[in-house]
Amino acid sequence: MNRASGDFAPLREFIAAPHRELRTRVLELLQEQDLQIPLEVSRAEYRDRVLKALRRLAEKGLGAMAYPEEAGGEGSPARSIAVFETLAFGDTSILVKFGVQFGLWGGSVHQLGTERHRSLLRDIGSLELPGCYAMTEIDHGSNVRELETTATWDPDGREFVIHTPHEGAGKEWIGNAALHGRMATVFARLVVDGTDHGVHALLVPLRDDQGGALPGVRIQDNGPKAGLNGVDNGRIWFDQVRVPRENLLDRFAGVSDEGRYASPIESPNRRFFTMLGTLVAGRISIAAASVSAAKVGLAVAVRYSLKRRQFGPDGAPEVPLLDHPSHQRLLLPAVADTYALHFATRELVARYDRMLQARRQRHPLPDDATRELEAAAAGLKAVASWHCAGSLQAAREAMGGRGFHGENRIGRLRSDTDIFATFEGANTVLLQLVARSLLSQFREDMGDLTFMGMLRYLADRAGTRVSELNPVVTRRTDRDHLLDPDFHAAAYRYREERLLTSAARRLKARLDDGIEPFAAFTQCQDHLVELGRAHAQRITLEAFQEAVARAPAPGASEFLRELAALHALAGMEARMAWFLEAGYVDPPKSRAIRRQVTALCGEVRETALEAVNAWGIPDPVLGAPDAL
Amino acid sequence: MNRASGDFAPLREFIAAPHRELRTRVLELLQEQDLQIPLEVSRAEYRDRVLKALRRLAEKGLGAMAYPEEAGGEGSPARSIAVFETLAFGDTSILVKFGVQFGLWGGSVHQLGTERHRSLLRDIGSLELPGCYAMTEIDHGSNVRELETTATWDPDGREFVIHTPHEGAGKEWIGNAALHGRMATVFARLVVDGTDHGVHALLVPLRDDQGGALPGVRIQDNGPKAGLNGVDNGRIWFDQVRVPRENLLDRFAGVSDEGRYASPIESPNRRFFTMLGTLVAGRISIAAASVSAAKVGLAVAVRYSLKRRQFGPDGAPEVPLLDHPSHQRLLLPAVADTYALHFATRELVARYDRMLQARRQRHPLPDDATRELEAAAAGLKAVASWHCAGSLQAAREAMGGRGFHGENRIGRLRSDTDIFATFEGANTVLLQLVARSLLSQFREDMGDLTFMGMLRYLADRAGTRVSELNPVVTRRTDRDHLLDPDFHAAAYRYREERLLTSAARRLKARLDDGIEPFAAFTQCQDHLVELGRAHAQRITLEAFQEAVARAPAPGASEFLRELAALHALAGMEARMAWFLEAGYVDPPKSRAIRRQVTALCGEVRETALEAVNAWGIPDPVLGAPDAL
Repeated sequence: MNRASGDFAPLREFIAAPHRELRTRVLELLQEQDLQIPLEVSRAEYRDRVLKALRRLAEKGLGAMAYPEEAGGEGSPARSIAVFETLAFGDTSILVKFGVQFGLWGGSVHQLGTERHRSLLRDIGSLELPGCYAMTEIDHGSNVRELETTATWDPDGREFVIHTPHEGAGKEWIGNAALHGRMATVFARLVVDGTDHGVHALLVPLRDDQGGALPGVRIQDNGPKAGLNGVDNGRIWFDQVRVPRENLLDRFAGVSDEGRYASPIESPNRRFFTMLGTLVAGRISIAAASVSAAKVGLAVAVRYSLKRRQFGPDGAPEVPLLDHPSHQRLLLPAVADTYALHFATRELVARYDRMLQARRQRHPLPDDATRELEAAAAGLKAVASWHCAGSLQAAREAMGGRGFHGENRIGRLRSDTDIFATFEGANTVLLQLVARSLLSQFREDMGDLTFMGMLRYLADRAGTRVSELNPVVTRRTDRDHLLDPDFHAAAYRYREERLLTSAARRLKARLDDGIEPFAAFTQCQDHLVELGRAHAQRITLEAFQEAVARAPAPGASEFLRELAALHALAGMEARMAWFLEAGYVDPPKSRAIRRQVTALCGEVRETALEAVNAWGIPDPVLGAPDAL
Repeated sequence: MNRASGDFAPLREFIAAPHRELRTRVLELLQEQDLQIPLEVSRAEYRDRVLKALRRLAEKGLGAMAYPEEAGGEGSPARSIAVFETLAFGDTSILVKFGVQFGLWGGSVHQLGTERHRSLLRDIGSLELPGCYAMTEIDHGSNVRELETTATWDPDGREFVIHTPHEGAGKEWIGNAALHGRMATVFARLVVDGTDHGVHALLVPLRDDQGGALPGVRIQDNGPKAGLNGVDNGRIWFDQVRVPRENLLDRFAGVSDEGRYASPIESPNRRFFTMLGTLVAGRISIAAASVSAAKVGLAVAVRYSLKRRQFGPDGAPEVPLLDHPSHQRLLLPAVADTYALHFATRELVARYDRMLQARRQRHPLPDDATRELEAAAAGLKAVASWHCAGSLQAAREAMGGRGFHGENRIGRLRSDTDIFATFEGANTVLLQLVARSLLSQFREDMGDLTFMGMLRYLADRAGTRVSELNPVVTRRTDRDHLLDPDFHAAAYRYREERLLTSAARRLKARLDDGIEPFAAFTQCQDHLVELGRAHAQRITLEAFQEAVARAPAPGASEFLRELAALHALAGMEARMAWFLEAGYVDPPKSRAIRRQVTALCGEVRETALEAVNAWGIPDPVLGAPDAL
């Protein structure tokens, strides 16, 4: 593509796909007065404004999008995620309250409930019925399996009794709880006839029509937070609250009128994870929103850095900030990573959509595919939310004092999105989940092999490894090779495979030694976190490369190829100690990669403005005066 | 030291030295109502409260500490920095306004002025005369040398005319400007008889007794910021404002009544840097305050992580968060780094104090020593402020949702201190200054050597290198070696020296090729930033090791030795690609270092509570309910 005269329209269209018109609609809404939050606003006013914004979005039919047509929706979670992703260019409190109401609360009714619960969905989608997703407890944040709230079957009244056994079992950080929620999906241990069937979800009314807490329900405002102060989070305790049998969201397990517990899923463990699997949409949504927030920060910082000049040769004009190599290093790999995660999350949404369609057509995907999707969602949520935090920090520093100015948005955006690393699952916990999922698959693939068999298996599997570790590849430093997408893909694949097989070996050695599984996994925790990350990074790179392959040429593919190379090599550079240790590259190659990253930064700098503009954030939505 | 029964009193005393009683006094003041800022407060009220807090501190004599006795002070900048460092445990807006008033405004009068300006100091120290330090301009943040405000000598009126030539030359982000400042030290180009003598400092009144802007002075509130909203930053423009000749702060240059410019420092370049050298106290103060803020965040997170349990073996109680290795990795190297920077900044203050004392006794230190001190201040300010940002991020994530809760302080503290990476000089710019300073010294040492001579010189100088790169050292992986302070010191020294000599080689090659200096330096920018960082890291480690050597035993030295080893090895691990590339370690040794870091984290975990408690932050000052 000729840079000077480049036509970036094809690139923009490619990036806005799919659901381009829907995204445009949301971008137009974001420019309305009701969706704008002033910089300085009290917490009470902020919450009012956010509720008002949500009403506007619901009125436009954006809340119900994922629900069936009979509930006023379009039956398209993928379109719903596109809305969420686009809303993330605006105020994050509106975004999160939107996610709480329509995604978590509505989503739990939609995904965990059955026909009898469908009638609620219309009122949820229209915001007639604001509600909560009450999972997390004070004492149990990440460890959902140990929740302590109980839902005990009362055979006399033929109803469930919801109860918080002690203060620390109160529900915590529940969005919509402090003020607006009228009902909640409460996750509680289902106890029938003395048997604890583990965590299940039930509908529990919270407030009457006047907004007062119902008998037995105690609610406390979570108060001021480091961010997201437009969302009314709260704590909830239940004191023997009775709900009818039908309030159990009974898609995966029910209790009959006679008090018999039954589930189509036999294993309690699998049932638990199937129910949690419904969290996958939340994780995908947070990953996508993280990418959007990173786009806002980087677009503001890159545009500013092209206008702002500082330092220069004696007697000559100062040069733009973005001409300084250290400034390029700070911002441009982050821009490339944002592209990578953009395509990776879009691909993830598409896969999620295919899975749901297959289910709807009663041809569910094999378990493997579901597990893979869940691992991808968990992994991408982790890397995307960290990427968001890192990009916003880089953007702030790149802008110096101007980045600290409220009106330039970086501050609030960072404070608001910071918690993305924690909610819908803490990132380090999620990466361990990814690793465990990969290990399970690996064990299934291996069957009952002995340790020697496992080593043989590894040797087979590591076919790529043998060729990749040959001296030619390890040492090649020519530009063609360094920019070769196949080299990048192989390196990322190699890293994941080697981390997987070595983790398997380390765990097996410990288990063989009789070490208790929790201890064995704990001893390998860093290794597992790294494996989870390597997996997420590998699928991210692959998604980017696939996007490059199908991008329109001319107009986008060459442009994207350069960014993909920067993403891949900067990612290798950041983990270079590992590659050197593994003998995958030798020191001269490591140096060559570093030089190549610097060179690519210089090349990408030439089209940096187009790179951030192609994300299609209209100026009034971007909103930062120093970026205009 | 016996961990179970350890007596940590000697450690605490060692850490509180010097000026222990003074620190205690400040800690007591911080518990007063007037020094506490509520979580939710409007910007206007916040500013009022901060002013009130400053009055209280001034009343207690803490503002004037650095000034001479006749100005109500103690003549001790070192004690003044101890106050600042301790105030950083409390609200950061109070801290920064304190720094603006007594450090920057008062400090500029004290350091750049002469006898005739001394009378102002009493009113500054008592807060009778709030004022500003007006250096930065809208168009020139980091590049102070290019400031555009002018102070033109008017021979007829025998006064200076202060003028802002265009909108972009307005003073920017000036603390105390928006509301309270009555006078300012304005940095402006001194023009006498058509000759531009470069940037000088002059006293310019801003407001009358009623707080109204004086004629010719235009002030604009900087408005809401990402943090520090209790500080009234503003912009200032001057329109032909006349000030008497005596308002020039004339320690380094003066204009006679007849309009003759004279300076005891001949070279304009050197004069400029001498004046900027007065910034050194500000940089030292920010470094020290960064360490304090990191202490708050880490103390809160570590204490919480010891109470909070999550996940555990089947059927057994959950384990404390800090028993998870990934959690240890997140927090404990940061704790060790905080110790390192604690001792490094204390040592820096001591050196600064010695320098000032030598000057006072008319035996100024040699230029080398001054330059070294300035490089240390710039480098430590950069690494400490980044460390602060990283530690607070780690603390937030380590606490999950509780870290997001306003009352636990991490959020506001992070938003407030984030700008430490920018003010008193942007970190990347400062690290380049450090590198340039090292290169100047290097060139002086080398004299007029030819390129071949330089290579021979390098070979001589690299005496350490030869022995350190011998195969035994490169490959030793035994515990004794890995924990040996001499190994750590040698590694850090080697890294700095090699970065210095290679930077010199790269620059020389470019200059020899006729590349213009600005371009040559720009091409090596990343290298220079890395060299600056390596220097700061080396002096940090050395300061920590020296502290270990003089720490009381038993009671502190063994405890500190372990933390110093963790600091040193985790720092090597973070730069392991470089050490591998350089052949300083081989892959098995790299792996051994990683394992040793993990092991050290496990060991430090046993005394983690004592490690953070030894910083001596009283509970009411720490203030986070989840850490109590």
